[in-house]
Amino acid sequence: MTTSASAPIGIFDSGIGGLTVVKAIQSLLPSERILYFGDTARVPYGSKSQVTIRKYAQDDAGILMKYQPKMIIVACNTVSALAFDVVEQIGKGLPVLGVLEAGAELAVQHSRNARIGVIGTSATIASNAYSFAINAIDPDVEVFSSACPLFVPLAEEGYADHPAASMVAQEYLEKLLEQDIDTLVLGCTHYPILKHMIKKIAGPDIIIIDSAESIALKAREVLAEYDRLNDSGDAAFPHLLVSDLPQKFKALCELFLGQEIPDVELVEV
Amino acid sequence: MTTSASAPIGIFDSGIGGLTVVKAIQSLLPSERILYFGDTARVPYGSKSQVTIRKYAQDDAGILMKYQPKMIIVACNTVSALAFDVVEQIGKGLPVLGVLEAGAELAVQHSRNARIGVIGTSATIASNAYSFAINAIDPDVEVFSSACPLFVPLAEEGYADHPAASMVAQEYLEKLLEQDIDTLVLGCTHYPILKHMIKKIAGPDIIIIDSAESIALKAREVLAEYDRLNDSGDAAFPHLLVSDLPQKFKALCELFLGQEIPDVELVEV
Repeated sequence: MTTSASAPIGIFDSGIGGLTVVKAIQSLLPSERILYFGDTARVPYGSKSQVTIRKYAQDDAGILMKYQPKMIIVACNTVSALAFDVVEQIGKGLPVLGVLEAGAELAVQHSRNARIGVIGTSATIASNAYSFAINAIDPDVEVFSSACPLFVPLAEEGYADHPAASMVAQEYLEKLLEQDIDTLVLGCTHYPILKHMIKKIAGPDIIIIDSAESIALKAREVLAEYDRLNDSGDAAFPHLLVSDLPQKFKALCELFLGQEIPDVELVEV
Repeated sequence: MTTSASAPIGIFDSGIGGLTVVKAIQSLLPSERILYFGDTARVPYGSKSQVTIRKYAQDDAGILMKYQPKMIIVACNTVSALAFDVVEQIGKGLPVLGVLEAGAELAVQHSRNARIGVIGTSATIASNAYSFAINAIDPDVEVFSSACPLFVPLAEEGYADHPAASMVAQEYLEKLLEQDIDTLVLGCTHYPILKHMIKKIAGPDIIIIDSAESIALKAREVLAEYDRLNDSGDAAFPHLLVSDLPQKFKALCELFLGQEIPDVELVEV
């Protein structure tokens, strides 16, 4: 049965970034089976057009559907911002969660001065999707945003602690930090990889909203609502699919998740 | 007729990098018609696998063939290194030139101490294709290479003169420069965008080999050989095709080529 509690949670992203979501789900919902697809043959998404992003999202959701998941998590903010409806359509009635909405909710809950900063890919920021989502919850919140196009390659290439990454981050964040924001949304699933560095630049007074953590909380809530929580399952390795370079992905997985992964499967897009 | 002198020279690359080749061809062969395809929907190539790169190369060459070019130039070193035979197959007897061979030849001509450095994408460097090409010309040359995976995103995002790019470059080049090389091949068509910075780090004694310039010389030579030089044509705008974001590409083109481009066409891959 596709909707049984023992079915996997399907998660997809453009590449390795969504592993931050896998990690958060594993930690909060250790009994759940996880199915993950990373579109490593076409990463990055955030510098591409809406038409292309929607086409890719359709393919990605279609791959997950073959494995009959009980829920789909869009672990890619760019897809959440520009192609969420496409995923819902492919999902045919399954609950679909987007990191964007989860991040927006958590940010509004945490902000005390109603001034929220958002960083993301060029496509996500240009879409204004975070402003819409935040203002749909609270129209009085002021949203300030900044595109950080180099963060994805810096994260993918392992530059999390590099002074060059820090220099780039300083520039990306400078104007945002002048706006007296008290909350900063990491609006791209790759960014938690750079969280330590971003936190250092933002300073101790700004709350960092990590969309990976917020989506895990949201997933638990929605699964409970649908009565699909799996609390009897044994912890299993996540089932990992990629469209390119499974060996590289396997190595990165082990780094990210802190556990050995038996296999990463290659699928065609 | 497909092979007439007035047919276009077909050039392709993964993204904007190949415009450095367009510029070099325009400058050396101003009467030639140029057809360019940039696969902006799937850029970058150099961090992807050989299987994926070969599939993409097949698509790219197929797109050019629809316009009946008289020659194909592979302006992407990664494709030159890993999928040159695929392009020759699709080209069905047309002369096909790869930036890699052209760069290797010019480097051997220039080196006095037979110690040549090569920088390129991860895929190009891992393939050892430059070493093979250089040693096929002169087996006594020692080749030292370094992958520079962040150079493509840095070039694509306009960081040519940025201190963060310079810091990254310094690290990429450090070990190479300890090897007493006297010649450095820019083994990726994006890298000429960063040439000024690379030159500054390499110092005045190292000759920088720009594959864009060498391929233009090679193209003239081969076209003359095939009696397909167009010396009567009027200078025309290059015909530009991309798989995504034509407006962004148009703006970058104008920056690169120093001329207004009337139109950039969107094609599907």
